[in-house]
Amino acid sequence: MSIETNLNLKKRFEKVRSDTERICAPLEIEDYGMQPTSDVSPPKWHLGHTTWFFEEFILSKVKGYKPFHSAFSFVFNSYYDTVGSRVLRSQRGDLSRPTVRQVMSYRKYVTEQCLELLSNPIDQELLDIFEIGINHEEQHQELLVYDIKYILGAQPLFPIYADMFSTQREVNTGFSQLEAGLYPIGADHLYFCYDNEMGKHKVYLQDFEIANKLVTNAEYLEFIADGGYSDFNLWLSEGLDFIRKEDIHAPLYWHLVDGEWHHYTLNGLVKINWDLPVQHVSYYEAQAFATWKGMRLPTEFEWEVASEKYNWGQLWEWTNSAYLPYPNFQKAAGALGEYNGKFMCNQIVLKGSSVATPIGHSRNTYRNFFHPSSRWLFSGIRLSK
Amino acid sequence: MSIETNLNLKKRFEKVRSDTERICAPLEIEDYGMQPTSDVSPPKWHLGHTTWFFEEFILSKVKGYKPFHSAFSFVFNSYYDTVGSRVLRSQRGDLSRPTVRQVMSYRKYVTEQCLELLSNPIDQELLDIFEIGINHEEQHQELLVYDIKYILGAQPLFPIYADMFSTQREVNTGFSQLEAGLYPIGADHLYFCYDNEMGKHKVYLQDFEIANKLVTNAEYLEFIADGGYSDFNLWLSEGLDFIRKEDIHAPLYWHLVDGEWHHYTLNGLVKINWDLPVQHVSYYEAQAFATWKGMRLPTEFEWEVASEKYNWGQLWEWTNSAYLPYPNFQKAAGALGEYNGKFMCNQIVLKGSSVATPIGHSRNTYRNFFHPSSRWLFSGIRLSK
Amino acid sequence: MSIETNLNLKKRFEKVRSDTERICAPLEIEDYGMQPTSDVSPPKWHLGHTTWFFEEFILSKVKGYKPFHSAFSFVFNSYYDTVGSRVLRSQRGDLSRPTVRQVMSYRKYVTEQCLELLSNPIDQELLDIFEIGINHEEQHQELLVYDIKYILGAQPLFPIYADMFSTQREVNTGFSQLEAGLYPIGADHLYFCYDNEMGKHKVYLQDFEIANKLVTNAEYLEFIADGGYSDFNLWLSEGLDFIRKEDIHAPLYWHLVDGEWHHYTLNGLVKINWDLPVQHVSYYEAQAFATWKGMRLPTEFEWEVASEKYNWGQLWEWTNSAYLPYPNFQKAAGALGEYNGKFMCNQIVLKGSSVATPIGHSRNTYRNFFHPSSRWLFSGIRLSK
Amino acid sequence: MSIETNLNLKKRFEKVRSDTERICAPLEIEDYGMQPTSDVSPPKWHLGHTTWFFEEFILSKVKGYKPFHSAFSFVFNSYYDTVGSRVLRSQRGDLSRPTVRQVMSYRKYVTEQCLELLSNPIDQELLDIFEIGINHEEQHQELLVYDIKYILGAQPLFPIYADMFSTQREVNTGFSQLEAGLYPIGADHLYFCYDNEMGKHKVYLQDFEIANKLVTNAEYLEFIADGGYSDFNLWLSEGLDFIRKEDIHAPLYWHLVDGEWHHYTLNGLVKINWDLPVQHVSYYEAQAFATWKGMRLPTEFEWEVASEKYNWGQLWEWTNSAYLPYPNFQKAAGALGEYNGKFMCNQIVLKGSSVATPIGHSRNTYRNFFHPSSRWLFSGIRLSK
Repeated sequence: MSIETNLNLKKRFEKVRSDTERICAPLEIEDYGMQPTSDVSPPKWHLGHTTWFFEEFILSKVKGYKPFHSAFSFVFNSYYDTVGSRVLRSQRGDLSRPTVRQVMSYRKYVTEQCLELLSNPIDQELLDIFEIGINHEEQHQELLVYDIKYILGAQPLFPIYADMFSTQREVNTGFSQLEAGLYPIGADHLYFCYDNEMGKHKVYLQDFEIANKLVTNAEYLEFIADGGYSDFNLWLSEGLDFIRKEDIHAPLYWHLVDGEWHHYTLNGLVKINWDLPVQHVSYYEAQAFATWKGMRLPTEFEWEVASEKYNWGQLWEWTNSAYLPYPNFQKAAGALGEYNGKFMCNQIVLKGSSVATPIGHSRNTYRNFFHPSSRWLFSGIRLSK
Repeated sequence: MSIETNLNLKKRFEKVRSDTERICAPLEIEDYGMQPTSDVSPPKWHLGHTTWFFEEFILSKVKGYKPFHSAFSFVFNSYYDTVGSRVLRSQRGDLSRPTVRQVMSYRKYVTEQCLELLSNPIDQELLDIFEIGINHEEQHQELLVYDIKYILGAQPLFPIYADMFSTQREVNTGFSQLEAGLYPIGADHLYFCYDNEMGKHKVYLQDFEIANKLVTNAEYLEFIADGGYSDFNLWLSEGLDFIRKEDIHAPLYWHLVDGEWHHYTLNGLVKINWDLPVQHVSYYEAQAFATWKGMRLPTEFEWEVASEKYNWGQLWEWTNSAYLPYPNFQKAAGALGEYNGKFMCNQIVLKGSSVATPIGHSRNTYRNFFHPSSRWLFSGIRLSK
Repeated sequence: MSIETNLNLKKRFEKVRSDTERICAPLEIEDYGMQPTSDVSPPKWHLGHTTWFFEEFILSKVKGYKPFHSAFSFVFNSYYDTVGSRVLRSQRGDLSRPTVRQVMSYRKYVTEQCLELLSNPIDQELLDIFEIGINHEEQHQELLVYDIKYILGAQPLFPIYADMFSTQREVNTGFSQLEAGLYPIGADHLYFCYDNEMGKHKVYLQDFEIANKLVTNAEYLEFIADGGYSDFNLWLSEGLDFIRKEDIHAPLYWHLVDGEWHHYTLNGLVKINWDLPVQHVSYYEAQAFATWKGMRLPTEFEWEVASEKYNWGQLWEWTNSAYLPYPNFQKAAGALGEYNGKFMCNQIVLKGSSVATPIGHSRNTYRNFFHPSSRWLFSGIRLSK
Repeated sequence: MSIETNLNLKKRFEKVRSDTERICAPLEIEDYGMQPTSDVSPPKWHLGHTTWFFEEFILSKVKGYKPFHSAFSFVFNSYYDTVGSRVLRSQRGDLSRPTVRQVMSYRKYVTEQCLELLSNPIDQELLDIFEIGINHEEQHQELLVYDIKYILGAQPLFPIYADMFSTQREVNTGFSQLEAGLYPIGADHLYFCYDNEMGKHKVYLQDFEIANKLVTNAEYLEFIADGGYSDFNLWLSEGLDFIRKEDIHAPLYWHLVDGEWHHYTLNGLVKINWDLPVQHVSYYEAQAFATWKGMRLPTEFEWEVASEKYNWGQLWEWTNSAYLPYPNFQKAAGALGEYNGKFMCNQIVLKGSSVATPIGHSRNTYRNFFHPSSRWLFSGIRLSK
């Protein structure tokens, strides 16, 4: 991982801690505890969990550290079996206590203890974990935005959060062409990156073309209008089961109000702007759309190789690659080894980043991953052929 | 139903409205929205629903009334199909909006409108609905206490609510004997009562004996120690399935801490006082306990006839009677007809009242009813033979 | 229970054993193992289980008895926890072995051993268990008919079984009137009866009227045509949930074929004869129909008292009584005590008998019981007011 | 696909039809209809479905063909949405009708009609579909063996099928080493193969080593004895959930009898031969075992490239490759396009073949695929590093 001065790290640590709180600022106290579906975590939980990460993996290793509260490890551990038992994921939304105020005190306490630690020279090993902790909290910032949108979007009152995290119309058109050959894939050690993207290696690609822009709402509406959701020939078998069982006929957050399509945005329920990239589609929908177009989704390797050809970064882009270990993948030792590797099954790689991705948390080697049915992330579609 | 002066009703209306808010006063904002299991409703929902009841069944009938918010009927309707669609019971806990503050404004608005209405002469019909609305809110006050206890009891931090709603040691002993004969059952029209307890009629009872006190924690511990929870001979078939599936080995809220029995109370997690009546048992457990004792639970008729023989009112007492219509039962017209009758299936009658029952909401003809697996109500056991 | 000579019992034993096999005679080998829903047991299982009953409760008590097969107790025990572990009810349909031929050998072996036993003087206690075993097998004969109809009715090919167990048009009309008063209920010891109907006792009834005939298919069609299945006001809350979840719009086995109502009968798929009593309705449907008519279902006590007034025996008749113990109910000792008592929860009493009830297994004190959602039994509706 | 003379095809057609029936010959009639879990299909269904395939895709295109039975298309369609509605997969085990005898008549009728067709010159297109139909039936022959083993293995009586389909001890040891480079992957048109393995293309591989033999029962026992099933660090997250939920502690069919490991085989319940390859493990178990060994599973590309180095064909071998389309994958037109492509999600590629694979149905380009939790197939483990 990376080498950095204490000072720079300290600044970045302070920034990540205050940014997380700023994302939550528009919320009402009541919003912080909601978990309307098990994929979503309550904002309060994100606030506590990112704090617990620094407490568990850094402060608790420091001699003389006094934990803020003995029960918080049980409450705010996510999925680290190494660390011990924890509140079930599906029951995070049952916790009214600790209160938001208590969690904010917990944040303050841990932030201050960490800052004090960072004011003095410390081991490279701890610095590396700080780096991970910062990146970890940046990841949760993005999840926070997804979860906030889902929580507020589930309210019959469709409340306004803020005019933030919106996408732009793309002006590019056409396809870029790439030639067959051996290409390097993955990251080297010059900057911070996760274990799952390391181990730079060669991959052979065939000739391919890839779109210079994302699929728009207008194009997706054509798919809907053409009966795309009911033409079984377009769908993966599991995708068809999914949309039938969940009764899905449009992207998440789309609502037909008096015959006109609206969608819930962080700025409230508004008419759809047809020129913007379609978002909140599952892999199943992305794949069916591509099939309907007579095209396909790019592999993660094609995407990475071609990434200089187009602007990316508005929405995470579904690839047609399953999330699997790179050759020579080595998972980190200890609890941090649970970060990525154990999820390498039944998930799909997404490349790029989104308008909700923190600045500096974006690179073309990044391997994001979600289950193919996920729709609440900021996802979009880029076609390939 | 009852005849009462406007003035008295107005006082009682004011009291019931402020009492509900007083019950919620010890809560944190975060507690108001929780629904850790589908039987429990968030306190915020109770606050809104009892308000909606007055708005829907009284104010909306008044010419010129302006509803507080057009979406609140959808949010706060409980189960009245007559009135229209509603938020699913299991999703009440997903509502962060309206906020507690907004719900309190809603309460204030509706309370004031009602008080103004009650300041002038009004129809007997509306007065009758006020009476029902007051009794309805009193019922929800009791449910609020159950739900608050369940919500707080589900927190790993076991927070303290207040030293309220606690039971007392009973000094009575032995059994009262009653002779066979024809006895009157049910209520007449001299005071307010629900449709399900009206239609006074005769019931023939055999000789029976009934305990002068409730079963204590100490007696129940003997049942546990004797292997009561694993002796299938003692249990109804569905009861056995229930305790096995839910892995139940003690009353709700009992926790074995370092080998010593504690239970969660509204005053926090404390050691069990063995002299107090056992509470938070299901009908299945009450029935198995009685069988283990070589006795049985009384029928609702036996209980009602014998009720003068003992002090009652600490805990609702499971009877061995299914909740069924009395002869000549007539359900009320319109939405209020959905109040009781449609639940007369697969539920068990409980008689008496509890420490959480509002004063004045208690009478020996009252027919409370819950599913046999319910444990979060303030329930206890009286033996019969 | 009853006193009877060995000889008569022996004859009845032989008859019950051969009758069971005769009921199965029209089946194909493949039909014997099917369990299309967990309420239904495979015919093969009934054949084995009724045999196991005699083996377990009689032969295994006889010195020197050699069990037919050591694993059969595990396979053919139904729900007797006293006796040991068993195949889960829901997995009875997974057993291809033992084969039908093996089960028939098992029947032959046990029948012969029992007959030998009955050829010599034996204890009254064993005779009593023989009596229960015969009644037990008679009960299973009726269940066999229900289960066979369900299994064959689930085949897309709608096979014909035989022209048996059909009902007749009733010629009676009008209502019988009964006067209020104390009436005796329950059975005495003069003939065989189950523990749940014993303990003759007095019940006070109000004036009531009860229909002289069952509700017909024609009357029930009016209810359907009038939107009965979609008028929530007519339904118990759990009934409404049930018909919505199961998407029920007509009695079980009714099929609309090219716009005309047919129903599956043991004689194949035929057009409905509108004059016959409606059958295969749940308690929920019976109750909703009665409410639609402005009437109600009789209680089990009313039915028993009035039973001389009308012809009964074509279909089991839903009452409005929950299945609960009579006063002074005593369950039998040992495994046989599990026969009735442990099911006294969340079930409804049906009175009478049906065309599928074995001759001699019918009396007006009989208390049959099923869950309110059950529809595969031969059930019908008699109105009361 | 392939070019072949009518005559040869006719012989192969006759062989595949009679082979399927020979596999079923040891069964009792009762075994034919069982479906103890939804992954398993009743043998009778396989017999009918493979027949329906020839009827639907060949005979029904022939002028004047008279279908054997109008309802059989509904009964025996598997998952071809193109063709119409069908019996739900999970309800195949509820069909007692058509009987085995009727299905055998159906087979005979269709076989004879096909043979007549093959006696005269026919279009290449129909010949190609015959080729697919034969391969299709060969695939079902292998599934039949899996399903028969599962059905019989679920019987408490552990019946013997026959001493067939058993594996051999492997004598090879050590690892083969392969060098990095570009390798060809996939099939060309010189022999029959499926659409999913076509489109020969280049893949770049790193240096790797691959075991010359499969993991044995003895080696797997070490993993169990070392606590492999309870060391969360070894498992994929979904794998851990799976073994916990299903309470899995050993391969499928392993039973601890009086402290000694046995396993159910087609030849009955026998003591485990420790020298034989371990079988009936899920991908999750294969992956955890490899991790425990400090190694990994090969990719499907490594396996294919290295396949000349070792003997394969005893068991299907889990790879670490997700089942995804090859570059330039084209699915076939019409219903046959549903054969492979729509399952390319959340499944894992297995390479090789097994003792249950029909002769001639095996090649190193074959891409078999199952969900990672599947254990009833004849699967094994080959390590890589």
